Amino acid sequence: MSQTQTAIVSIELESRSYDILIGNDLLRAPSSYEGLPGATDAMIVTNSTVAPLYAPALKAALAARYRRVHLVELPDGEAHKDWATLNQIFDALLGAGCDRKTVLYALGGGVVGDMTGFAAASYMRGVPFVQVPTTLLAQVDSSVGGKTAINHPLGKNMIGAFYQPVRVIADLQTLRTLPQREIAAGLAEVIKYGPIADEAFFGWIEEQVDALVALDPAALAYAVKRSCEIKALVVAQDERESGLRAILNFGHTFGHAIEAGLGFGAWLHGEAVGCGMVMAADLSRRLGLIDAAYAKRIRDVVRRVGLPLRAPDLGVSRWLELMRLDKKAEGGEVRFVVIESPGRAGMRAAPDALVAEVIAEHVA
Amino acid sequence: MSQTQTAIVSIELESRSYDILIGNDLLRAPSSYEGLPGATDAMIVTNSTVAPLYAPALKAALAARYRRVHLVELPDGEAHKDWATLNQIFDALLGAGCDRKTVLYALGGGVVGDMTGFAAASYMRGVPFVQVPTTLLAQVDSSVGGKTAINHPLGKNMIGAFYQPVRVIADLQTLRTLPQREIAAGLAEVIKYGPIADEAFFGWIEEQVDALVALDPAALAYAVKRSCEIKALVVAQDERESGLRAILNFGHTFGHAIEAGLGFGAWLHGEAVGCGMVMAADLSRRLGLIDAAYAKRIRDVVRRVGLPLRAPDLGVSRWLELMRLDKKAEGGEVRFVVIESPGRAGMRAAPDALVAEVIAEHVA
Repeated sequence: MSQTQTAIVSIELESRSYDILIGNDLLRAPSSYEGLPGATDAMIVTNSTVAPLYAPALKAALAARYRRVHLVELPDGEAHKDWATLNQIFDALLGAGCDRKTVLYALGGGVVGDMTGFAAASYMRGVPFVQVPTTLLAQVDSSVGGKTAINHPLGKNMIGAFYQPVRVIADLQTLRTLPQREIAAGLAEVIKYGPIADEAFFGWIEEQVDALVALDPAALAYAVKRSCEIKALVVAQDERESGLRAILNFGHTFGHAIEAGLGFGAWLHGEAVGCGMVMAADLSRRLGLIDAAYAKRIRDVVRRVGLPLRAPDLGVSRWLELMRLDKKAEGGEVRFVVIESPGRAGMRAAPDALVAEVIAEHVA
Repeated sequence: MSQTQTAIVSIELESRSYDILIGNDLLRAPSSYEGLPGATDAMIVTNSTVAPLYAPALKAALAARYRRVHLVELPDGEAHKDWATLNQIFDALLGAGCDRKTVLYALGGGVVGDMTGFAAASYMRGVPFVQVPTTLLAQVDSSVGGKTAINHPLGKNMIGAFYQPVRVIADLQTLRTLPQREIAAGLAEVIKYGPIADEAFFGWIEEQVDALVALDPAALAYAVKRSCEIKALVVAQDERESGLRAILNFGHTFGHAIEAGLGFGAWLHGEAVGCGMVMAADLSRRLGLIDAAYAKRIRDVVRRVGLPLRAPDLGVSRWLELMRLDKKAEGGEVRFVVIESPGRAGMRAAPDALVAEVIAEHVA
């Protein structure tokens, strides 16, 4: 639990296995890059917010390993997670004459990671990529497990690939420059791992929530490590989300509807997930799976982190329509991740009437 | 070698293994679709040329298996193998509320197959797809082996995925409606398999070339089957083209330069490959690998099929520049597929001066 030691969490996926390095000052440490595939070229993909903060350090570290280190700077934000922005990466790669051994480095948050991963999956039908997540949300969730995607006007993450990075380098120091709102959004995904998979971790989160909000180094290091461990266990069992992995989407069906309904970028993804978890916990209670006290514990942690508890009033029919576009829907039926008992999640369909009650209860 | 019996060639790729069915009237036969993954929805992706010929028959066959059978009709031609056209598939899928079990059917030639495959690889991070190739080129080459892609203004097939279909249904009857130019283009890829992998097959092609041009049913059935068998063997050994599989690109480095240099669609892909094989054979001779008589045999078969033998005069520096953009290039060095001995291919770099001689010899 020391914040000075580097932790290594391994994702076991046969030939696609890789390590997540978690620690301080990893960006600058040459050892972070040891053993990565060789190439003449590397390309750092980042955004206009992160570039001035960390691109020089990453570029300096990579200069020792590659003949040429390119950089492409995307506009910041979920609103730009689209084909036009993705194509900026392809333009840069082809413009620089990058071959199919070129290693991409995703330096930034979830949007940069998802887009860089999909670019890596697709450029010349696949080049290696490294995740260098600089937000809490990316370090505990989106950089791990190989889900990559862009949005489509009709739905979030609708176009993408399962494509694993060759390494994740989670430098805890980079979290120091995050705005408080981004910290809270990242903590939503940390909280998630408790109710779905590890009740003891949920208890720890309840105790440590103020320390986490304050970026206490030891608390933060443990939260990132334990989150990655849980995600690694789930992903190793179900890489392509044919079953179990879907539990990692707790709160996401409600959350995606909020994001799509308001227009991507209005709420941060983690904010929508936080509110979505409160709604999904309420749905679990109404389905008779958990009691009101447990639903309240989830709600209380979300509240203490500073995440929004009131969902936008999109109208019930629009809410239901947006959720039917969720990727977990099958044959027109929405399937929700619910808490079946403290520390254990499952998938359930739910009657529209019950879902409508949940929506009515939580809209602002 | 009978044209009335259905041949089955299997591609062995562990969990991604699948069958290629080759025969007559397979489009209409219910048995062609047995054992495919279940779903409520199927979507036929085709183009404006093929749709009126075969979409009604495919739609009728699929109506027995799916609750809803959608159809999306793309503009015809390599010039439309781009993101904007690919996005028409995503728009149609999301507009129809298709879930992630939806099965895509690629009904058409190589462009339709490559785009449908990439759409299937990317839609909701992967849905199943079936290849129903209706051109000779697609039946003997592009529908088999899981290479999918779209073009980028700076290079052909630069954005794509290795993504295997769940079946290939090659109905030989559909070749009857092909223009002669398309037959010749398809035969280029048939010819290819001889010099690179099977000298006996090359001898058979030399004997049967007139019968093949005339679409003799028995000759055609054997050519498609043997081509698929050779491709299956190569792909099973090297699915993601880390080595051996590159030999299937014999003639393609020169060919891609022709296509890119003239603008995609000016020459058919098979026409460019035909001319490219003549050039690559000449390069192999100049490298001292094969003698002039063998290079002439390759040239003669290409000529008898009616494929162009003279390459466009793009200027030597432009030729070399276009070839450096080839996906097989590494660290700025172009690597050519050469014939090392009759029936055996390998990869070689070649000095620019020698490549320039080949270009000078063959330009119109």
